Amino acid sequence: MSTQAPDPFTTLLDLNSGSLDPERKVVERRLSDMAGMHLEGYADGTADTVIYSVHEIPVPTTNSNLMSSTTVIQPGKVGQEYYMTKGHFHNIRDRAEIYIGLSGEGCLVMATEDGQYTVETIRRGTINYVPGGWAHRSVNVGDEPLVFFAVYPGDAGYNYGTIEEEGFPVLVVAGEDGPEVVPNPRYKDAAASEAG
Amino acid sequence: MSTQAPDPFTTLLDLNSGSLDPERKVVERRLSDMAGMHLEGYADGTADTVIYSVHEIPVPTTNSNLMSSTTVIQPGKVGQEYYMTKGHFHNIRDRAEIYIGLSGEGCLVMATEDGQYTVETIRRGTINYVPGGWAHRSVNVGDEPLVFFAVYPGDAGYNYGTIEEEGFPVLVVAGEDGPEVVPNPRYKDAAASEAG
Repeated sequence: MSTQAPDPFTTLLDLNSGSLDPERKVVERRLSDMAGMHLEGYADGTADTVIYSVHEIPVPTTNSNLMSSTTVIQPGKVGQEYYMTKGHFHNIRDRAEIYIGLSGEGCLVMATEDGQYTVETIRRGTINYVPGGWAHRSVNVGDEPLVFFAVYPGDAGYNYGTIEEEGFPVLVVAGEDGPEVVPNPRYKDAAASEAG
Repeated sequence: MSTQAPDPFTTLLDLNSGSLDPERKVVERRLSDMAGMHLEGYADGTADTVIYSVHEIPVPTTNSNLMSSTTVIQPGKVGQEYYMTKGHFHNIRDRAEIYIGLSGEGCLVMATEDGQYTVETIRRGTINYVPGGWAHRSVNVGDEPLVFFAVYPGDAGYNYGTIEEEGFPVLVVAGEDGPEVVPNPRYKDAAASEAG
């Protein structure tokens, strides 16, 4: 047996709130961490607002292990765009990921480097398959926290740079009749990079 | 992007019953499929009784993909031993697996090839980590179906032979005060192989 395998262990997951017991590693993203991600700037005085948190069950970051985490995205908007995760490719691009929706209403925006995109729904009981090669961003389009549990190979890693520079082909915005998927006017535009 | 990556897709999982929509690939195990797995033989006329079913969301069986499935184990016993899965190592031994408990009461028996073992609890909201190198069997110790959702690397594969030949170091049996973990008298005994 590889010395890179941990001993067996059990973590408790609240299947409604997504909270983990014991709580392990938590990453919080505030509006200030999201600079340049939304089309509009955030309002003065809101920089410290927590947009989302990721609660990870850490394991060695090797190919044979499986990382897992709960993501909680708060409801809200910057301009007409909903609160969302930064979104990333995996460092090892071909690694897949599985999302298990627990609560709230969301969109999972996925895109390949050559501009293919698709948007799937995240809600309680959805199992979303993010294949290798697809960047992924989740967007809270509801009034409650959006919560999902994700599983991915331990060596997948996170590449945020490509999305920070190029953006996603589409944005999810609040339209008159609810969420709308619209083209991103800054997709692969140098301006996006400067703003970020 | 690898041609071995499917397009993005979403499957619905009932977070109580574990049922999948659309239903994909189903494997059913009957008592007749479990011959030699329990210490005692099953009663005459019960050979066709379904002990458990595995409902899989199939993806290409490559390292970068993630397989996932719901397992439903019925309540019941053969002699004093509870209904359980066959149990297996992964073909690629060092691949990990994650179980998400949905309903019922169970034990997850894990063992290494050199005879180390541990037993974890499966119930609604447990996240069990099965590290690489650990064979795993789940046992329904309750009165209702035991249901969990599992995620594992696409190339992990199933090695049933070692367990069929050697068994697990311990059995889970109904004791006077509930489930008990007891030594398996046939562990690594040639008799187990002949019986199987």
